[in-house]
Amino acid sequence: MTIQRLPADAPPLATVARIGDFVGQTVTLRGWLYNLRSSGKIAFPQLRDGTGVIQCVAGRKDLGDEAFEALIRLGQESSLVLRGEVRADPRAPGGYELKVSGLDILHAAVDYPIGPKEHGPDFLHNHRHLWLRSRRQQAIMHIRHLSVMAIRRYFDERGYLLLDSPIFTPNACEGTSTLFETEYFGRPAYLTQSGQLYQEAGATAFGKTYCFGPTFRAEKSGTRRHLTEFWMVEPEIAFADLEDIMDIAEDFLVFCTQFVLEHGRPWLVELERDLSKLEAVQKPFPRISYDDACVQLAALGEPVDPDDDFGSPHETVLTQQYDRPIMVYGYPTAVKAFYMKENPEKPSRVLGVDVLAPEGYGEVIGGGQREDSLDVLLHKIQEHKLPQEYFEWFLDLRRYGTVPHGGFGMGLERFVTWVCGIPHIRETIPFPRTITRLTP
Amino acid sequence: MTIQRLPADAPPLATVARIGDFVGQTVTLRGWLYNLRSSGKIAFPQLRDGTGVIQCVAGRKDLGDEAFEALIRLGQESSLVLRGEVRADPRAPGGYELKVSGLDILHAAVDYPIGPKEHGPDFLHNHRHLWLRSRRQQAIMHIRHLSVMAIRRYFDERGYLLLDSPIFTPNACEGTSTLFETEYFGRPAYLTQSGQLYQEAGATAFGKTYCFGPTFRAEKSGTRRHLTEFWMVEPEIAFADLEDIMDIAEDFLVFCTQFVLEHGRPWLVELERDLSKLEAVQKPFPRISYDDACVQLAALGEPVDPDDDFGSPHETVLTQQYDRPIMVYGYPTAVKAFYMKENPEKPSRVLGVDVLAPEGYGEVIGGGQREDSLDVLLHKIQEHKLPQEYFEWFLDLRRYGTVPHGGFGMGLERFVTWVCGIPHIRETIPFPRTITRLTP
Repeated sequence: MTIQRLPADAPPLATVARIGDFVGQTVTLRGWLYNLRSSGKIAFPQLRDGTGVIQCVAGRKDLGDEAFEALIRLGQESSLVLRGEVRADPRAPGGYELKVSGLDILHAAVDYPIGPKEHGPDFLHNHRHLWLRSRRQQAIMHIRHLSVMAIRRYFDERGYLLLDSPIFTPNACEGTSTLFETEYFGRPAYLTQSGQLYQEAGATAFGKTYCFGPTFRAEKSGTRRHLTEFWMVEPEIAFADLEDIMDIAEDFLVFCTQFVLEHGRPWLVELERDLSKLEAVQKPFPRISYDDACVQLAALGEPVDPDDDFGSPHETVLTQQYDRPIMVYGYPTAVKAFYMKENPEKPSRVLGVDVLAPEGYGEVIGGGQREDSLDVLLHKIQEHKLPQEYFEWFLDLRRYGTVPHGGFGMGLERFVTWVCGIPHIRETIPFPRTITRLTP
Repeated sequence: MTIQRLPADAPPLATVARIGDFVGQTVTLRGWLYNLRSSGKIAFPQLRDGTGVIQCVAGRKDLGDEAFEALIRLGQESSLVLRGEVRADPRAPGGYELKVSGLDILHAAVDYPIGPKEHGPDFLHNHRHLWLRSRRQQAIMHIRHLSVMAIRRYFDERGYLLLDSPIFTPNACEGTSTLFETEYFGRPAYLTQSGQLYQEAGATAFGKTYCFGPTFRAEKSGTRRHLTEFWMVEPEIAFADLEDIMDIAEDFLVFCTQFVLEHGRPWLVELERDLSKLEAVQKPFPRISYDDACVQLAALGEPVDPDDDFGSPHETVLTQQYDRPIMVYGYPTAVKAFYMKENPEKPSRVLGVDVLAPEGYGEVIGGGQREDSLDVLLHKIQEHKLPQEYFEWFLDLRRYGTVPHGGFGMGLERFVTWVCGIPHIRETIPFPRTITRLTP
């Protein structure tokens, strides 16, 4: 006997998501009690089965006193098996209801901690393992899953090889202050902050590669845009310059938003997302040089030091001027990583680009063209006081057939936060990790 | 100007993988010099572009003395752009060749370290960033990518929600001896060894979930089957018992092997894999109880203590009796994790299963039914001397609507090692991490 396959004499197993296929039939549904109203003669349990919630109708007469009494005494999230006839009913939420003819109670839950009343975010995050059962969190997790599918499909269908970058690295790519360290058989190892350097090896081996995995930053700022553990996708392309990278980033972001919009509409509606904002994510994205953006920001009353980086307030003001993502390129060389290629026509600016999401969501993509000259890179490593011996393998990529190349990184959770239109990034990952949170 | 889009007057850009679409046309190819033979008048460069290798023919007369001399002096892995006519030629490896009419040298590489001579594994792994350019490694990485696609597709198409388990965990699931530890803002955190416990929260929220991400074990044994960092997929299913889990594991493994066989045949041929071994991976897999396996092993001259676990030699001998994976279930309770459900009819055995690959590759999947009783689980946690306070959230899953459930985990690299038919697991991951290796 297996549980997935019901006994031969049981009504066929259905799911709430596919219940419309069973109208007029008697089926078996398994799940958890989401809600229950009852009078002395009739009860309206709502059953949650992981694929959706369905309203059910159970009469005392049909079930008998004993089963009916047991049912109406059940607490929220009790697990049960219901049998009954599926009826189309336009008044029911979802359009269908189950007329219950039989039930088995698997486990009677008592005092489920998350009730209909409002709970604070700390309480909910402390109960994340249960909070995931709520409709809103389910909608966000479905949008996350669809986003992952869109991202992978984009690259898989376009000839990129998936080349997972390692998590353990012997050295720090962009400074040690935000690194997590572990003891690795008697020496230190660091958790990756970016898989990019390894993807550069990938691009010269396979032409185009990507990695998509967890990334770690010991962010001491507990902002609503930061997690210590988040997922990042990083494509890298050989024979590409800044303009190519902007073309690809734009095409990619349009594909991903439209894919989620196409396949995730019910979840976005559940989240009360303004769909017109996502429908507007179409090519072309405005391409604005950093210097032009500074002029624009000054005129908007938010001046920037042209040799410093943008802050979040600048990003917010700037992106509010547009109905779609914008691409800001040519940031000051002084504030960017050592591997970014300088603009040969203006060495104080790099051939890098940030894609800023609209509605104040800010940077979702950062990337650009990489320095492909061995000599320049050696000089940069000295200038940034980085330990050259750790980068010898990376320098090899410039010693043996160097080519113009570039790529970008997109943080999955920032993308999902924006697409869902929610205020805080921590709801976009199943079990968020922040400076104050390591559990559950 | 972009690099991806060639100038308007250049021949169209082609790739080696799709070169058959361009027979009779003049195209542009970009890549790296894989090999070169030449006489005074004619040269046969092989160009590698990341999608494949093509043989080219370049005449001194066609190129002119200067370009021809420059070409034949180029070292392996020099980067270059070739223009020329595509010809079908059954004598050429791959069936096509390029008659070169023009070239641009991007970068002349000197003394590429990996030559045609034999190198030891340490040397090659030290040059992993370059070794990935070799045909054999490219074949393995393509099989890895196809395996990831198969795994994700299997679950995505069958209603499983992707629910990434966290990497940072506050506690040890299966003992601390193989855990990597990091300082997490003043307290210890551990890198995950398994996402299963979190998937159990997922299964009760969504019915069926999976995670697929990197996993860490501070393995002190440097065997050819162990990495310290590897990728694992872990589905978890509510309303499932051991037999369901065996059904799903079997169906999943057949799907993945046949998917790779269907889409990865050229790479498997490159690896000289015996395809008949993979074609034999079909249902049903023999299902053998642990106790029966012990009897069988004793008869084969490899006795096992029936209260101890199998070792690798036992797995090897046992699997050699079959042409396909086998499922061994009902292992001794004493050697298995606290969360495994005991067989109610024989408490000294758990409702767990290992799927053992043929040809001596051993365990690729481990899983089974989980303990769903709060009381039994509390008792087990005490028995295993685990800190109950860390597991309160996990116990909540038994407090609020517990249901029979189970799942399994499959190590990606073990699967790829077996499918590729190669002896050592470290070649199946782009940048392997072992007790002795943290670089490049």
